Amino acid sequence: MEKLSVFKLGGKILDNPGTLQAFLQGFAALEGRKILVHGGGVAADQLAAKLGIPVTMHEGRRITSPEMRDLAVMVYGGLLNKQIVAQLQKLGCDAIGLSGADGKSLVAQKRKAQPIDYGMVGDIKTVNTQLIETFLELEMIPVFAPLTWSLEGELLNSNADGVACAITEAFSGVYETYLLYCFDKAGVLLDVDDQGSVLKELDKTLYEHLKRDHKVNSGMLPKLDSCFRAKTLGAHRVLISSPHDSLAFMTGASYQGTLIS
Amino acid sequence: MEKLSVFKLGGKILDNPGTLQAFLQGFAALEGRKILVHGGGVAADQLAAKLGIPVTMHEGRRITSPEMRDLAVMVYGGLLNKQIVAQLQKLGCDAIGLSGADGKSLVAQKRKAQPIDYGMVGDIKTVNTQLIETFLELEMIPVFAPLTWSLEGELLNSNADGVACAITEAFSGVYETYLLYCFDKAGVLLDVDDQGSVLKELDKTLYEHLKRDHKVNSGMLPKLDSCFRAKTLGAHRVLISSPHDSLAFMTGASYQGTLIS
Repeated sequence: MEKLSVFKLGGKILDNPGTLQAFLQGFAALEGRKILVHGGGVAADQLAAKLGIPVTMHEGRRITSPEMRDLAVMVYGGLLNKQIVAQLQKLGCDAIGLSGADGKSLVAQKRKAQPIDYGMVGDIKTVNTQLIETFLELEMIPVFAPLTWSLEGELLNSNADGVACAITEAFSGVYETYLLYCFDKAGVLLDVDDQGSVLKELDKTLYEHLKRDHKVNSGMLPKLDSCFRAKTLGAHRVLISSPHDSLAFMTGASYQGTLIS
Repeated sequence: MEKLSVFKLGGKILDNPGTLQAFLQGFAALEGRKILVHGGGVAADQLAAKLGIPVTMHEGRRITSPEMRDLAVMVYGGLLNKQIVAQLQKLGCDAIGLSGADGKSLVAQKRKAQPIDYGMVGDIKTVNTQLIETFLELEMIPVFAPLTWSLEGELLNSNADGVACAITEAFSGVYETYLLYCFDKAGVLLDVDDQGSVLKELDKTLYEHLKRDHKVNSGMLPKLDSCFRAKTLGAHRVLISSPHDSLAFMTGASYQGTLIS
C-alpha cells in the first residue's frame, strides 16, 4: 500500500515564524503523498482582544460565539492558511488551502447545546476523500484550516487534532497512513518539566495508568484520545513529536518522540 | 463551443446580505459552467478602522500596506470567501474558494514602486487554466477572492475586476465566454442620477466620446477598461448590470444592462 502522511501543526509552532519556516522546508522536500492540518495559534485571541470580543471558556474549553467563529474564519481560514500555502508554493510544493466548506471537504455536525453550549463548534461526520484523492493524484498538497461546514450551511470551528484524526481514519485501509502530531514538546513527557523524560512508546494500558495517576497534563487528553482513536481505526503509525522529529521519522532518520501503540 | 460565465460581484452587493443571498440562489440554479469572482466590500475598511490601521490613498487609489494586505487576506480570502462558499454549498452548488496562492491559480507580478508605490498590489500574469478546468470538469464552482500570489512567494491584493477579466481572457477561445460585471447600478448610466439612463450598448467610439466629455464617473474607468480589454481579447459577451439582470441575461430572460460591443 502507498504511504500517506497527515501532519498536524499545533498553535505554538504557528506562532514561531522560524520553526514554521524550517518545518515547511522539510515538509515541502518530503517525498510521497501528504496532507497538512494546522491549528490556530495566538493570532485569533490577539485579534479578539484588540476588537474587544470576549473569549469565553468553560472548564478550560473555549466557547465559540458567532463573533469568535467569524474571527476564526478570518485568521485560520484566511491569514494562516493562505500564508502557509504561499510559503509552500514558494518552496515548490503545490499546495491548496481548504476549509471544510470548500468542496464539502469536511462536513460536521454542530455540537449539541446540552449539557454545555460550546457555540459554533462542529464534530466531523464526513471527509470528502474523493476530492482529497483528486488533489493527491494531481500531486497537490491539501492544507486544512480547522474549519468545518454543517449541512445547515454553517461554518464551524473544529479541533485541529480531531480534523487530522478524521482525515487519517478516512484514508486508513486505502493508504498506509501516518499521523504526525507536531507540537512544541519532544513527545509525551513523564515529567512535564523534563524534556528528557519522553516516552518512546505509549500503549492503551500505560495511558490508562498515567491518566489514573494524573501524570498526563489535562490539555493533552483530547490529543491523546485522538491518537488512540486514529490508531484503533487503522492508522499505521501515530507519532507525537516536535515538527523536526516528525519529518526525521518519515525520512527514516533518527528521531525523538512518542509512538502510539 | 461550450459556454463559460464569469460573474464578478462588487463590494456594495457583498455589503447587502439580502441582495447577495438572492444573487447566490440564482447563481446556484444557473446551468452550465460558471466561475464567481468577488470583491471586497466595506468589511475590510471597517476592520481597519477598528484596529487603527490607516487607509492610505493616492489620487483615489488605495495604497496597500503589509498590514492592509493581511487584513485583505483575512476578510476577502477568509471571511467573505468562505461565507459565499458555505452559502453556495447550502444551495446545492459545489463551490471551492480560492486565493491566487491556492494551486498557483492566479500568479501576479508585484506592481513596480515607480512612479507611485501602491504597496502589496499585483497585476495578474498567469491564470492556472488547467486547475480551474479540473474543477469545472468535476462540476465544482471556483469562487475567487481578489488575492494573487507572486513568484517571490508574496500574497498580493488585486483588483477584482482585473481578476475576472484575466480569467475570462484565459478561457476565451476554449469556451464561449461571458463576463458579467454585477454592481449596484443598472448599467452604465448617461446621467449618474438617473437609473433610467442606462446605455443598452457601449462601443469603443462612444466610450472615448464619453470619456472626453467627462460623462463617465472616474471610478468606472478601470472597470470599463477591463470590459473593453476582455471584449478585445475574445470574450463573447461582456455585460455591466445588476446581479439580478446578469442572471436574467444568462437565462435568456429580459434584462437591463450595458452590453460592451
